[in-house]
Amino acid sequence: MKLGRMNHIGVATPDLDAAIAFYRDVMGATDITEPFVLESQQVRVCFVNTPGESGTAGTQVELLQPTTPDSAVGKWLEKNPLGGQHHICYEVPDIHAAKAWFEKLGKRVLGEPRVGAHGTLIFFVHPRDMGGQLTEIMEAPTHEH
Amino acid sequence: MKLGRMNHIGVATPDLDAAIAFYRDVMGATDITEPFVLESQQVRVCFVNTPGESGTAGTQVELLQPTTPDSAVGKWLEKNPLGGQHHICYEVPDIHAAKAWFEKLGKRVLGEPRVGAHGTLIFFVHPRDMGGQLTEIMEAPTHEH
Repeated sequence: MKLGRMNHIGVATPDLDAAIAFYRDVMGATDITEPFVLESQQVRVCFVNTPGESGTAGTQVELLQPTTPDSAVGKWLEKNPLGGQHHICYEVPDIHAAKAWFEKLGKRVLGEPRVGAHGTLIFFVHPRDMGGQLTEIMEAPTHEH
Repeated sequence: MKLGRMNHIGVATPDLDAAIAFYRDVMGATDITEPFVLESQQVRVCFVNTPGESGTAGTQVELLQPTTPDSAVGKWLEKNPLGGQHHICYEVPDIHAAKAWFEKLGKRVLGEPRVGAHGTLIFFVHPRDMGGQLTEIMEAPTHEH
């Protein structure tokens, strides 16, 4: 596998609207997408677009608020009530090839590929196998940029 | 303030050489800088370069191993022995203007601006004031790219 683009870092928050206000009013973000509910992950989610080099799109901040305390992000927030960095996401050209790659290396892939917040297939790899980082692997969108 | 480029995410590790091998052999990174000791932060550090859009440089992964358990990163690792995401770093054009901005908003800036791993002035802002994320603010290098 070849390292792909860092698509986003996932940041959990107990209050999505407050987090949006923070990125807008404190950090100075000018481009934040409309929040929507991603049922498959039981989160309300939006993206803060950050500037990359030379006018390109940079790594996004994905803001995540659980829609129920029983969800994965809800349980994470129980341990980290302020919120904070929850996962990191890299793009790959082929999600199934990537899954086979991580599995061959003995990394615990958490479930089958499913549609993620960008509308492409994603899976997560267990943080204990990834240097402590919950890692999302995402098939790169072909229509963006 | 206007949101700047996400320069890097800081990832703490108990074993820098193992972390380098992980990014090279598992994640497929092909461009990892030589480790060096940053005395002011009591860390051994290197950067994993990730690809941005259209051949630009993407957000880096800064790998950090404490040189002593008494350091800030050393204490963080006590609570997170596997390592993981430690901080996030955004670029600003003027470090002193940025410090004044965060202070005006009541955010706790941790110490005076000092030279960071990229050779420019940096400071950190307290995670409790930043949605749970320890946030590094870094004056953008003028000579890179």
